[in-house]
Amino acid sequence: MADPDRAERDAAPFLRACRRLPTRHTPVWFMRQAGRSLPEYRAARGSGSISEAIRDPDLAAEITLQPVRRHGVDAAILFSDIVTPLDAVGFGVEVVPGVGPVVAEPVRSAADLDRLRPLEPPVDMPHVTETVARVVAELGDTPLIGFAGAPFTLASYLVEGRPSRTYARTKALMLGDPGLWGRLLERLASIAAASLRAQVGAGATAVQLFDSWAGALSPDDYERHVLPASRSVLEAVADLGVPRIHFGVGTAELLPLMRDAGADVVGVDWRTPLDAARARLGPGTAVQGNLDPASCLAPFDVVAERARDVLRRGGGTGHVFNLGHGVLPETDPGVLTALVDLVHEETGATGR
Amino acid sequence: MADPDRAERDAAPFLRACRRLPTRHTPVWFMRQAGRSLPEYRAARGSGSISEAIRDPDLAAEITLQPVRRHGVDAAILFSDIVTPLDAVGFGVEVVPGVGPVVAEPVRSAADLDRLRPLEPPVDMPHVTETVARVVAELGDTPLIGFAGAPFTLASYLVEGRPSRTYARTKALMLGDPGLWGRLLERLASIAAASLRAQVGAGATAVQLFDSWAGALSPDDYERHVLPASRSVLEAVADLGVPRIHFGVGTAELLPLMRDAGADVVGVDWRTPLDAARARLGPGTAVQGNLDPASCLAPFDVVAERARDVLRRGGGTGHVFNLGHGVLPETDPGVLTALVDLVHEETGATGR
Repeated sequence: MADPDRAERDAAPFLRACRRLPTRHTPVWFMRQAGRSLPEYRAARGSGSISEAIRDPDLAAEITLQPVRRHGVDAAILFSDIVTPLDAVGFGVEVVPGVGPVVAEPVRSAADLDRLRPLEPPVDMPHVTETVARVVAELGDTPLIGFAGAPFTLASYLVEGRPSRTYARTKALMLGDPGLWGRLLERLASIAAASLRAQVGAGATAVQLFDSWAGALSPDDYERHVLPASRSVLEAVADLGVPRIHFGVGTAELLPLMRDAGADVVGVDWRTPLDAARARLGPGTAVQGNLDPASCLAPFDVVAERARDVLRRGGGTGHVFNLGHGVLPETDPGVLTALVDLVHEETGATGR
Repeated sequence: MADPDRAERDAAPFLRACRRLPTRHTPVWFMRQAGRSLPEYRAARGSGSISEAIRDPDLAAEITLQPVRRHGVDAAILFSDIVTPLDAVGFGVEVVPGVGPVVAEPVRSAADLDRLRPLEPPVDMPHVTETVARVVAELGDTPLIGFAGAPFTLASYLVEGRPSRTYARTKALMLGDPGLWGRLLERLASIAAASLRAQVGAGATAVQLFDSWAGALSPDDYERHVLPASRSVLEAVADLGVPRIHFGVGTAELLPLMRDAGADVVGVDWRTPLDAARARLGPGTAVQGNLDPASCLAPFDVVAERARDVLRRGGGTGHVFNLGHGVLPETDPGVLTALVDLVHEETGATGR
């Protein structure tokens, strides 16, 4: 706290909201704000692959900053991918456009665990920490969110080999060989923790753990087979003093468990109204969300009505406004800018 | 009640459970029990298309009966598809293996509504009522469940043109042109109602309305833009006196609204524990579900433990045991037979 820059960043509405402190306006950012909805993103990416863009600190920093410049959001989120650390340890995973992460040789047996060696960020992904440092230098007092994929969601890609609707192989391994499953999740937890620590070490001032697909699980399975590994990730960054956001889709029944895993902020998708989420989570946890990304394709008067409803249910203090999942690529970026202005104006800011 | 056959069928555990009456054992059936998990299904289907099989009453009746013979389930469900009535009115929708329903010319404007003329079952799908009649003649006192796709789920296929992860176009239409959306859902409701009435008229003794993808909606959107049309379907069959089951996936937040649409039984997926579902639904509604279909890929001791937990949470009277969604094609049918036996034995039957 002797560091004046740190104190400055701590005053940012986003960080204060994560800590359930009063803010001058409700902070807002968007999952996938740095992405295909922005023409400047498509121009910067050109024909290169996502992995190439992530590995190029100049380009990744530029892409990270684009939505902050255009929309005036209250936080940046690093341009990267949840499978980046797995690729960095040489597991062999590629983000295929229009498909998602694809693994050439999926996890099938204990021998495959050896392919998940511990992550050494300075050696394995120096480009990521370099990107973080460049972004932070440009951002001024806007916080940067670092992130990682949670063990279950990463495991689902490694076991299925590609995005899945049923997670059948993943669950079959989880239930059929809980020992191997547990060791797989431990390794993924250790990789996620190392990645988050490196991002914070380089200047990120908050972290989000994406367990995007945890909502495919019953509460019992989540608690028994997933929560311990997610907890170990969140505990591994507890000493860093940055807010920890924990997010997944379709997690209506899992919210209290996701809180118990060690979250300061629980991200909620649009299926659960924020007032209901708050009632389940109790007063000690902030919430993030939760406008349906698809509603951003509607006329703006509808978007505005929905956004006001989210603000009302979010209840002010301890609410970070966001979508309930990532920005859809076909979203008009003007709608997102107008949403930022609306959230700021409705909650007390006098303009940006 | 003067009809002795009808009285006999009404005594079936499945029908009694739907009416929250005590049963000699908890009844059990499986969504997609007539499907690819069965070698005899694959043999019967051969290389023909799903539509061809549905249009052939001999074949469709055989496929409907297969799981009853093999597993001893407490109910049959007609082998058909939720898009069959849409195809029957000439909309042009094909069930593509490995993909799902695909529509050559999706709904884009009001002009497309004309392509959804009212369904006249005797003319448009005589094969369906013929199949129902043949199945009922074979079934003895095992009830047959007729079914239809709910307006939202059907609309999602018609608007997207194929299965979707985001339902972006569907929601954009729903929010952007609620008048057209409402007329689209009214037409789909009328088609679904006509199809259900025809199935019951031919001998089905229960109906299930599949709103498989309604869980993609927030409660507000569901209540405003979907519930009225689903209610009109369920009300249209109220006078027939057969139990009405209402099912969707990921509906944790929607259960009371799905009940209010006019359901005697609410189907629950595995994400919501049945005791929690019961608490939300109240004592006046039966529940159906909810073993995770993927858990059937685990060793049987794990399956059995999960099934017992479902029975315990289901609470006995007013519970129809089922999976939380359809049988996965890779499921060992022996596991399903063993599950039927387990449910019957644990809940009081002395064997089948």
